[in-house]
Amino acid sequence: MNFVVDIVVTLKPSVLDPQGTTVKEAFHSMGYSKVDDVRMGKYMEVTISAGSKEEAQGKADEMCRKVLVNPVIETYSFDIKEQEKQEVN
Amino acid sequence: MNFVVDIVVTLKPSVLDPQGTTVKEAFHSMGYSKVDDVRMGKYMEVTISAGSKEEAQGKADEMCRKVLVNPVIETYSFDIKEQEKQEVN
Repeated sequence: MNFVVDIVVTLKPSVLDPQGTTVKEAFHSMGYSKVDDVRMGKYMEVTISAGSKEEAQGKADEMCRKVLVNPVIETYSFDIKEQEKQEVN
Repeated sequence: MNFVVDIVVTLKPSVLDPQGTTVKEAFHSMGYSKVDDVRMGKYMEVTISAGSKEEAQGKADEMCRKVLVNPVIETYSFDIKEQEKQEVN
């Protein structure tokens, strides 16, 4: 079975985000003065083959911890769903 | 009221994603052979002040369409929630 894992990696709230501040200032200079804050993150859609949802979940968690996320400054969350079958005509 | 808008911008499925392919190959070379596909996207957490959830939704949609998203190659989705009050001690 194939599972699609939507991973979001964000900076911890205590970590400064200069990229987000730049985007916020760009919004202000374009007239969007109601924007109070912008924090940037990373988004990945990873397709994994696994025997069960639990296995896919374990794999995704391991990949996040070991590869995708810097635990000193970042946190992550993900969402797993089974991939819909694609018909081959 | 303040609203937190979680915006995800992804490439349309028909658009090639060389960055995602590179990440996929990196996973394979690290032993994660069950990774079938990786697609990269952008994630932003934008805090907006607005009178109502509908107003915040309209603002967020406009910002996505006019600024954050290239409609030729990208699609977007977002999620709005009211910001929890922060106590000032």
